[in-house]
Amino acid sequence: MSQLLTRNASHDPSRTSWVESANQPGCDFPIQNLPWGRYRLKTANTNDWHLGVAIGDQILDARAADVIDTDDLNAVMALSPQQRLAIRNQLSEGLQTGSAKQAQWQALLTPQADVEMGLPCRIGDYTDFYTGIHHATAVGKLFRPDQPLMPNYQWVPIGYHGRSSSIGVSGSDFKRPQGQTKAPDAAAPSFGPSKRLDYELELGFFMAQGNAQGEPIAIDDAEDHLFGVVLLNDWSARDIQAWEYQPLGPFLAKNFATTISPWVVTNEALAPFRAPFTRPASDPQPLPYLDSANNKAQGQLAISLEVLLQTAQMHAAGLAPVRLSLGRADQAAYWTAAQLIAHHTVNGCNLQPGDLLGSGTLSGELPTEAGSLLEMTQGGKQPITLPNGEQRTFLQDGDTLILRGWCEAEGAARIGLGQVQATVLPA
Amino acid sequence: MSQLLTRNASHDPSRTSWVESANQPGCDFPIQNLPWGRYRLKTANTNDWHLGVAIGDQILDARAADVIDTDDLNAVMALSPQQRLAIRNQLSEGLQTGSAKQAQWQALLTPQADVEMGLPCRIGDYTDFYTGIHHATAVGKLFRPDQPLMPNYQWVPIGYHGRSSSIGVSGSDFKRPQGQTKAPDAAAPSFGPSKRLDYELELGFFMAQGNAQGEPIAIDDAEDHLFGVVLLNDWSARDIQAWEYQPLGPFLAKNFATTISPWVVTNEALAPFRAPFTRPASDPQPLPYLDSANNKAQGQLAISLEVLLQTAQMHAAGLAPVRLSLGRADQAAYWTAAQLIAHHTVNGCNLQPGDLLGSGTLSGELPTEAGSLLEMTQGGKQPITLPNGEQRTFLQDGDTLILRGWCEAEGAARIGLGQVQATVLPA
Repeated sequence: MSQLLTRNASHDPSRTSWVESANQPGCDFPIQNLPWGRYRLKTANTNDWHLGVAIGDQILDARAADVIDTDDLNAVMALSPQQRLAIRNQLSEGLQTGSAKQAQWQALLTPQADVEMGLPCRIGDYTDFYTGIHHATAVGKLFRPDQPLMPNYQWVPIGYHGRSSSIGVSGSDFKRPQGQTKAPDAAAPSFGPSKRLDYELELGFFMAQGNAQGEPIAIDDAEDHLFGVVLLNDWSARDIQAWEYQPLGPFLAKNFATTISPWVVTNEALAPFRAPFTRPASDPQPLPYLDSANNKAQGQLAISLEVLLQTAQMHAAGLAPVRLSLGRADQAAYWTAAQLIAHHTVNGCNLQPGDLLGSGTLSGELPTEAGSLLEMTQGGKQPITLPNGEQRTFLQDGDTLILRGWCEAEGAARIGLGQVQATVLPA
Repeated sequence: MSQLLTRNASHDPSRTSWVESANQPGCDFPIQNLPWGRYRLKTANTNDWHLGVAIGDQILDARAADVIDTDDLNAVMALSPQQRLAIRNQLSEGLQTGSAKQAQWQALLTPQADVEMGLPCRIGDYTDFYTGIHHATAVGKLFRPDQPLMPNYQWVPIGYHGRSSSIGVSGSDFKRPQGQTKAPDAAAPSFGPSKRLDYELELGFFMAQGNAQGEPIAIDDAEDHLFGVVLLNDWSARDIQAWEYQPLGPFLAKNFATTISPWVVTNEALAPFRAPFTRPASDPQPLPYLDSANNKAQGQLAISLEVLLQTAQMHAAGLAPVRLSLGRADQAAYWTAAQLIAHHTVNGCNLQPGDLLGSGTLSGELPTEAGSLLEMTQGGKQPITLPNGEQRTFLQDGDTLILRGWCEAEGAARIGLGQVQATVLPA
């Protein structure tokens, strides 16, 4: 069992911080969380980026606080698990109520309201997986009612390489993509803005230490290589995808934009939030390189996931975003993050600190837990009606999509992943 | 028509260099070539990398020669086409016979034999296309004899994202990948070293200036965004691919290793080597965003491509590598590099300097022009026999695969792309 997943004093739910806002009920960033992000002052016209740790509604400048000696999160990710644990403990002790550090660190706080967040790190490679079995089944049903799941699905953690350059942080609005699409009955494709633009609710896993080419990461070591987790929206143009994806997979349907939340919640912080792994006994059991007693014991990340939509009309009318779905990652994912890392490297492929792995769309079994409009509207056939009377099959220009995530467990303080939002601009 | 494709004095076949080895017939790097690479002295135990330009059997240190002020090729790639042309002209004038620079630059030469070559630049994202229509047809025939080409093939320049981290430069030997495979008649997959390891003969296109997210590159501007070309071997584990690729495309079958040649031959140097675009009139014509009179006039890159194999047994017996195939890129590719760039960005996806686009396997129509063993052996059914009596369906441990490329044209000096080689190590 990874030492990162052992609870210690930093997880103690009774621990409070001298940063008062961190002690408010419902706060995403109490002292038990301590996620990492990259920020600069909104007023600064420079590239003066800092690495910080969120605490309540503030950010602690981690380099100035002398817990790290870099403004490069990739360098922090490259540290050993022991070093990462030591940094967490140092941060937790320094920020706790009564700490001798208070006088010094108080001066190193910046209100989150005053900063612009950047991507947390350099993302060398981005891989997107397909671990949501209910999503894979629901999408498969639209194409193959008799055999919705491909024969490989329960054996292989299906994944493909995505685009790094177009990953943006929350708030990165983007233009509706244009491209080729072809109606089933059309003789030839046509060109224009996508008419079936969708979101996908995912978690993003940031890699810590990587592996040398040719040296796989064993399943029992994999948790130590996971730095932390963000929310990830894998925007998808369904009509472009349907025409382009044979035989090499999605390309322009996905690579125009991917959006992530700015705060990376560490694997250490998530230690109290694990749920049993729920693969039915009647399913094929994983091959040995994907299986271990530790992996079963460690289980899935238990994270609640919520999707909200605010249309342009709602925004203009001052209406708050409405919930489209609410579900749980551990009830959606068929493979653990450790299994993804073991699988990704088993052929010798090298992962690097800061690489990002997407979970795939995390839909639950119920319609209220669907992680995309494709599922919610049964392939665009059944529009959903919003409280203000508007209807949607797919996203319209001006729609703002918001993902939120948080963790709650018996005997643990609630922590949050914050949120990721972005607005669809006209093509 | 891009200014980069206009011949000038730097292309004059009568121009010679004061570096005598550059004037030898058959030399890959005469003064008309001037490709870029990154190198360090074999004797240097440091990370003291330099950017250089190959001339004959020597390398000119480009920063020391004061033609650039950086050791970072990505920064050179980010320059404007006019600046890149000016640098080429400066190099060509300084290296030509009788140049006043000779005395100064002579001291900045290093023999290629004394250096280790690195990857030429940071590769942010790597995209692999599928432009070889004879390859797509031959591979398609193995799976779908009645309809070898997918309906989208002649409309969409099919591509997918590959893995950046495992791209190595010539000489990067790698272990045979392990992974899941499943025989068609097996009830369950099994795990082990790939038994159907193959190479793929490709060109790699390095990007120059990129585009902002949401701002496509028009087909007529695309040539200006192409920095240069290398040889690329897209190693492929066919058995892993067959089991994993549905529905999201190749993943572990490809991402364990990709190998490129160290010298980037610039788009400017390739100006004399263009061949008419050969899309048959009976084929669908490209949609407007992929079509222009300039694109037709500019045509395809006319590069001769050769594949050679040296087995461990041949190596031990002192036998030279044997030719497996010889063909021409322009007779293999269905889409131009300009079309790939226009397509890649039409949805708003941003390309960056140093991004790499693979052409896909460049097989000609004839069996002697096949760019992979899959085609040469008809899916592994018809072994080929080597001159020393050994047989191959797929690659065996100890096999060294070598790709070579060069350009010849009426009224132009021959230039070469050099070569890329690597050896398959045991799993």
